[in-house]
Amino acid sequence: MRLSRYFLPVLKETPSEAQIVSHRYMLRAGMIKQASAGIYSWLPLGYKVLKNIENIVHEEQQRAGHIPMLMPTLQSADLWRESGRYDDYGEEMLRITDRHGRDMLYGPTNEELITDIFRSHVSSYKDLPLTLYHIQWKFRDEIRPRFGVMRGREFLMKDGYNFDLTKEDALHAYNRHLVSYLRSYERMGLQAIPMRADGGPIGGDYTHEFLVLAETGESEVFYDSQITDLTFGDRAIDFDSVEQCQAVLEEFTSRYARTDETHDEAIFAEVPEERRRTARGIEVGQIFYFGTKYSDAMGALVQNAEGDKVPVHMGSHGIGVSRLLGAIIEANHDDKGIIWPEGVTPFHCGIVNLKQGDDEADAACEAIYASLTALGLEALYDDTKERAGGKFASMDLIGLPWRITVGPRGLKNGVVELTSRRSGESVELPPEQAIERIAQIYGRASA
Amino acid sequence: MRLSRYFLPVLKETPSEAQIVSHRYMLRAGMIKQASAGIYSWLPLGYKVLKNIENIVHEEQQRAGHIPMLMPTLQSADLWRESGRYDDYGEEMLRITDRHGRDMLYGPTNEELITDIFRSHVSSYKDLPLTLYHIQWKFRDEIRPRFGVMRGREFLMKDGYNFDLTKEDALHAYNRHLVSYLRSYERMGLQAIPMRADGGPIGGDYTHEFLVLAETGESEVFYDSQITDLTFGDRAIDFDSVEQCQAVLEEFTSRYARTDETHDEAIFAEVPEERRRTARGIEVGQIFYFGTKYSDAMGALVQNAEGDKVPVHMGSHGIGVSRLLGAIIEANHDDKGIIWPEGVTPFHCGIVNLKQGDDEADAACEAIYASLTALGLEALYDDTKERAGGKFASMDLIGLPWRITVGPRGLKNGVVELTSRRSGESVELPPEQAIERIAQIYGRASA
Repeated sequence: MRLSRYFLPVLKETPSEAQIVSHRYMLRAGMIKQASAGIYSWLPLGYKVLKNIENIVHEEQQRAGHIPMLMPTLQSADLWRESGRYDDYGEEMLRITDRHGRDMLYGPTNEELITDIFRSHVSSYKDLPLTLYHIQWKFRDEIRPRFGVMRGREFLMKDGYNFDLTKEDALHAYNRHLVSYLRSYERMGLQAIPMRADGGPIGGDYTHEFLVLAETGESEVFYDSQITDLTFGDRAIDFDSVEQCQAVLEEFTSRYARTDETHDEAIFAEVPEERRRTARGIEVGQIFYFGTKYSDAMGALVQNAEGDKVPVHMGSHGIGVSRLLGAIIEANHDDKGIIWPEGVTPFHCGIVNLKQGDDEADAACEAIYASLTALGLEALYDDTKERAGGKFASMDLIGLPWRITVGPRGLKNGVVELTSRRSGESVELPPEQAIERIAQIYGRASA
Repeated sequence: MRLSRYFLPVLKETPSEAQIVSHRYMLRAGMIKQASAGIYSWLPLGYKVLKNIENIVHEEQQRAGHIPMLMPTLQSADLWRESGRYDDYGEEMLRITDRHGRDMLYGPTNEELITDIFRSHVSSYKDLPLTLYHIQWKFRDEIRPRFGVMRGREFLMKDGYNFDLTKEDALHAYNRHLVSYLRSYERMGLQAIPMRADGGPIGGDYTHEFLVLAETGESEVFYDSQITDLTFGDRAIDFDSVEQCQAVLEEFTSRYARTDETHDEAIFAEVPEERRRTARGIEVGQIFYFGTKYSDAMGALVQNAEGDKVPVHMGSHGIGVSRLLGAIIEANHDDKGIIWPEGVTPFHCGIVNLKQGDDEADAACEAIYASLTALGLEALYDDTKERAGGKFASMDLIGLPWRITVGPRGLKNGVVELTSRRSGESVELPPEQAIERIAQIYGRASA
């Protein structure tokens, strides 16, 4: 993309309403614009990152064998009356009346709707196991929306639901979700720690929240420092293997890691003192096995091998897609701006032309741009007439991980400059080598 | 995808509520399920087609130089009061009050919101031309929603907005949209004819609707039969070229083609009688230049080269993404079910195993499945124990354009059967040749 043809409304001043760094940088980098309280338009740069995160979530869910679909944003109140949640949910549920006076609501979650789909179409254990998921906009009418997309009212979430014959099968689905979530967050450049969560009124041990450590996190967290040494990496895993998935669960959840909601000082005291950590965290996902709560209430029964009708065991599993942008920035920035992890960056590379209008510099930039495009890499080429300082400041602010700087002086020596946004280090290289380096970083075969 | 692991709830009986063929087949093929009146859940098969259509729209919009972003579903009433449409819109607008008593609405369209974004960030002619678009769910509270996704209440639409300094520039944007729409529909296997539309209260000659001919269309259309001979094909076009885009507009709109709203018997009578046609059509898109209507009302001004502040010239351009599924089925089906065009089919190919459990047949199916997957082609492999007749009926119903049938008898002679859903013709071929044929059809290099 040529910047002269893009829509990237970068702000010089810090908007006064933004209290945390991710919100400030998302506004300044022209990623979002508030449409009304807690509701945002995603400007082109923000939309690209949102899509990248969505794609990672889709790929990892499908790798785990989960099936994509899409439920609508608006739901009928009737299903929520069946489950008993219509009255329980309180003021965060946005209630709507249509022109015929029917009670509707903007879905904050989808247990009722998915259970209704399931009971309409599935009646035999032979059709199990089944996990369906979608990525859809949801609404929670927060009394005080704040922190930009971190605590918005209209937000994008992946929510998935497993349907299984037995508790044992449902716990395998739980473990599959844990593995797929670990993979997803790592691909986004995040370390998200599964922490024992509060099962709420249902209770039970089978719920974990995934937290990203960040000073601005809303939750206080307590953990054994050994847990931050764990990475899933690119190990092969068979999602059908109960043993393999269970082993990952044990590896990632056997050490102490809890939020203030479930923190237990007595157990925490058993962790060797030098490994005890207190910090703040941002919740970016949750997995939850809740048994037959909804299948009982809504009559989602299947016939088992003996011919008996039994309620299915279910769980729901969420990833906060839009909030992840905030979490990633909270964990990846400096005082100049955002530092995107390669996995989610809106453009793979920036190109800065130090002397737009100089024939040689323009031609060199065009050639680099064309080479990167041919490799399937997206570059943002700053082809404007802005002075060099302004171009660098904008590139640093929007946080592309790699930048190629092209100027007449370097070209005389046959080199351009390749700069890492994260380390700030620059190397001078012939253009072909800079392109090859970028191709290697992103796993693209160079020409 | 193996059918045994998929969620494809095919119905044997025709649902009584469905009046038109696309609605019947979408329900029977397990593509959608009604959530409430005019609101649908997209089951996995339907979701895949929806995504394919969305992807084509994205690719063609970006090819034309239009920039993707995303606006929220809910909007504040304030902007609509500024434009004067809050009171004008009537009961089809779903009005919502949040917990603080603020007036909101579920966006039926986005002229106000995009104009607000524009005026907040753009103040110079140097940042023009600019066309922004998004694909987002919208809501129109239809009094009698019907025909499934063809006239639903919650529907997915692409809407794009151009901002230009002059009427001339804006008409080039109009023409770019016309070209990109022709390309999009053709890739979906549709012939959509641009017909002169009614400019409504604004008037003006610069609006066309795109109509797909189908018996169940809601509009009566009148046209010169020469128009159905036109195809855009894969001709190269430079979207920056005013002349090239204008030439396409002239080629595709100079012959008589109007809906009943703009039909003029006197002009129609000038078409030679043997070329005059009357038919029914489904509207699948509209382009519209409306000048400075919103920029005047909302103060979206830019400074021109002379330093004067002038309102920008705008247009809005829509494609009915979710309704396109209905339109495609109305135009592509027979009495056995859907016949997907290759461009939007949910799976590239079906594989039917005539004797699941037979070692040789199972192995042959697995090998074909693996080969297609390696070529980047998605196959739906019916690996269930259902009898052959049932498998064929389901495959015909869901309408995959190509089917490979594998059975012990054929394998003894070293062949499988490759069947075209559209023509019904079958040929016997060695498995490798069947795979190669499929790879050619979809433009994939065979191994």
